[in-house]
Amino acid sequence: MAASFCTQNALSLSTHHHHQKPIIPRDFHVRFPTSSGSFSSLPGRLELNATTKFRVSSSSATPLMDQSPVQTTSSGLPAIVEVDLGNRSYPIYIGSGLLHQPHLLQRHVQGKKVLVVTNTTIAPLYLDKTISALTDGKPNVTVESVILPDGEKYKNMETLMKVFDKAIETRMDRRCTFVALGGGVIGDMCGYAAASYLRGVNFVQIPTTVMAQVDSSVGGKTGINHPLGKNMIGAFYQPQCVLIDTDTLNTLPDRELASGLAEVIKYGLIRDAEFFEWQEKNMPALLARDPSAFAYAIKRSCENKAEVVSQDEKESGLRATLNLGHTFGHAIETGFGYGQWLHGEAVAAGTVMAVDMSYRLGWIEDSLVKRVDRILKQAKLPTAPPETMTVEMFKSVMAVDKKVADGLLRLILLKGPLGNCVFTGDYDRKALDETLHAFCKS
Amino acid sequence: MAASFCTQNALSLSTHHHHQKPIIPRDFHVRFPTSSGSFSSLPGRLELNATTKFRVSSSSATPLMDQSPVQTTSSGLPAIVEVDLGNRSYPIYIGSGLLHQPHLLQRHVQGKKVLVVTNTTIAPLYLDKTISALTDGKPNVTVESVILPDGEKYKNMETLMKVFDKAIETRMDRRCTFVALGGGVIGDMCGYAAASYLRGVNFVQIPTTVMAQVDSSVGGKTGINHPLGKNMIGAFYQPQCVLIDTDTLNTLPDRELASGLAEVIKYGLIRDAEFFEWQEKNMPALLARDPSAFAYAIKRSCENKAEVVSQDEKESGLRATLNLGHTFGHAIETGFGYGQWLHGEAVAAGTVMAVDMSYRLGWIEDSLVKRVDRILKQAKLPTAPPETMTVEMFKSVMAVDKKVADGLLRLILLKGPLGNCVFTGDYDRKALDETLHAFCKS
Repeated sequence: MAASFCTQNALSLSTHHHHQKPIIPRDFHVRFPTSSGSFSSLPGRLELNATTKFRVSSSSATPLMDQSPVQTTSSGLPAIVEVDLGNRSYPIYIGSGLLHQPHLLQRHVQGKKVLVVTNTTIAPLYLDKTISALTDGKPNVTVESVILPDGEKYKNMETLMKVFDKAIETRMDRRCTFVALGGGVIGDMCGYAAASYLRGVNFVQIPTTVMAQVDSSVGGKTGINHPLGKNMIGAFYQPQCVLIDTDTLNTLPDRELASGLAEVIKYGLIRDAEFFEWQEKNMPALLARDPSAFAYAIKRSCENKAEVVSQDEKESGLRATLNLGHTFGHAIETGFGYGQWLHGEAVAAGTVMAVDMSYRLGWIEDSLVKRVDRILKQAKLPTAPPETMTVEMFKSVMAVDKKVADGLLRLILLKGPLGNCVFTGDYDRKALDETLHAFCKS
Repeated sequence: MAASFCTQNALSLSTHHHHQKPIIPRDFHVRFPTSSGSFSSLPGRLELNATTKFRVSSSSATPLMDQSPVQTTSSGLPAIVEVDLGNRSYPIYIGSGLLHQPHLLQRHVQGKKVLVVTNTTIAPLYLDKTISALTDGKPNVTVESVILPDGEKYKNMETLMKVFDKAIETRMDRRCTFVALGGGVIGDMCGYAAASYLRGVNFVQIPTTVMAQVDSSVGGKTGINHPLGKNMIGAFYQPQCVLIDTDTLNTLPDRELASGLAEVIKYGLIRDAEFFEWQEKNMPALLARDPSAFAYAIKRSCENKAEVVSQDEKESGLRATLNLGHTFGHAIETGFGYGQWLHGEAVAAGTVMAVDMSYRLGWIEDSLVKRVDRILKQAKLPTAPPETMTVEMFKSVMAVDKKVADGLLRLILLKGPLGNCVFTGDYDRKALDETLHAFCKS
């Protein structure tokens, strides 16, 4: 049986969640045992770290109130989420105005040469600021930049080669640092370029979309698309640090913002009930781009992902639970055509379908189905696939999903109270069929 | 001061070398302290393992005689060199007829799908044998193959994409294994493809040239060339195992064989005086392709490289000593045009130049200069660069060598008695100039 149970009690410490109004202490360490009995039946390699530790810096030591989330202090000190991966651990700095705090980036730049990889949309907005942050008070540091075309369709080998061309032309050496300035596509491409250039150079991420901040900033997944498949070519490669300046969200289009919220909502559903409840109350603040609400949502999302990734860096099992809604979502992206819907939009519709299927299996209450539908609508996200999607389109794409092992499609489904999920191939095929027919023309 | 001393006493155990006629015991473990004082001043990261362990299997338990090297036993049991890299450790099997021992490969193939990457020269000779070795008694294992054009000029992104195309078309999944069947170019490309496909799949190497067997088989360096530079794009990626069937050398052209011997000779010069002395006596047997002489030379070369790589996987300092003759050699390959000389031929000429420079610095005896010249000539290798190479050609290429750190070119030079070398930027520039002028037109 290829099932793994992802329960909040087993995988995260209740001390992190049991207060209605949690106080984040000045120095917060969580330690828990490496192996949870419920994962012992997982197939393949499952590498667990001895301990998982999260440190939240003193600047976050502000009590949380239900309607008024954590404030970044007036001094602009960042919140810090430490991603614990042994000697590849790194900090994520989160806060407003961080691009104006050069020491944050500079402490992670070792050599004298930096290559900023960005795109035509982001360069006019933030490239100068980034170069200043890298060079202020550092006359010996040379910053070069390569500006790529914007969009998922350019996430390919041809565009990647432009990064290598620039790196070689500007004589980037082994001690150089590649900086990804942009959204998920830039982060994935720059990260893979950093992993591959001279067999690996330093890498820093400055994500400028909610999606990149709450998803790509943790986990080290980098790569490009192949004409025959998404993310088929890449590497697991960890950055030296991630700098999230929430001010960059001010220039983000509404639709991109909502797309990122789909992933935020996912963390609540799969493992953090209290965070989901916070989102239900604070969605208006998030949609109004309240910086402190966003800082909190990003931090808590990164913490959730960091906990999962620390335990399962190479996606053996537990990490797959982060893909709630993604199998249906990928089918939508592939079947409907990439670029039609944003990733988070497809994930939102896919989440509704996974939740529907979980309910048909009798694994969750009807009330949870309604809450998911309500919060996604509130976030202005789709709650059903595009009308042109057919049952056959879903089935043909899902048959070649990466999560198919030995012919069996494993899915992430909710099971039990809010905050619990399973990654399993052990489900009634009838429920999957019913869900597909309920949402699509046959 | 960026100098590191590579002395036999500091870095390898004398038990390995102090017998005139060494007996290789049934189970051979070498342990030595992690950090040697002489390396404490190295720049950059230097990651050392806690212990370095080499196991030589019982089949190698044959006493060595001066003129009659280790025999592979009649049962065909392989010699095994264990490359110790923590959870990425792997065995190298060495012997005659190993492609006819399916269990050796099969124990390292986890999934049901295998992709053999080879070239137009090797496929007609060994592809069928390899497929048989992978599938004999394994009806559930499917083997696909991709046959690339032969030659260093095809070690590029375009050819690499053909491997990805085939992998995706044949639906290779995360548990699949990529098998490199061929020389160094195939090993480098297949290894990088394995490192990148689905962010990393299993990898097995079957090297069929001396160069690939004694060099690429240890160390995990994979990659491709960029139009502007060699090996600029790649990954450090370790195989599940390396299988060296010495019978594959029967089809190797003489020039390729000699080219590989340049690397074998290098191991003696930089760290294994006794091995160099063995080579001086056994060169005729090697040139006559005596299988037992080759099995011994390959095993001892792999052991030497494994010792170095176990201590310095990412080439921080110690590992650079493996590049004796390579800085001058790269200049020859680049200046003279790739494909004119084989890699080992360029290394041989480069070694003579490094040795000449070491002598001019007063770091080695005149007798060692003569011995190096003599053994390289005996191996039918060049002992000077091509006549068309000028001093300026050397200087311009060496200025952009990867070993230039902060403007200073560091070189691997011999220093002290046979078997000792240094990797240093701390030398008299006059000696370099004199060497270049001694070997080239100005």
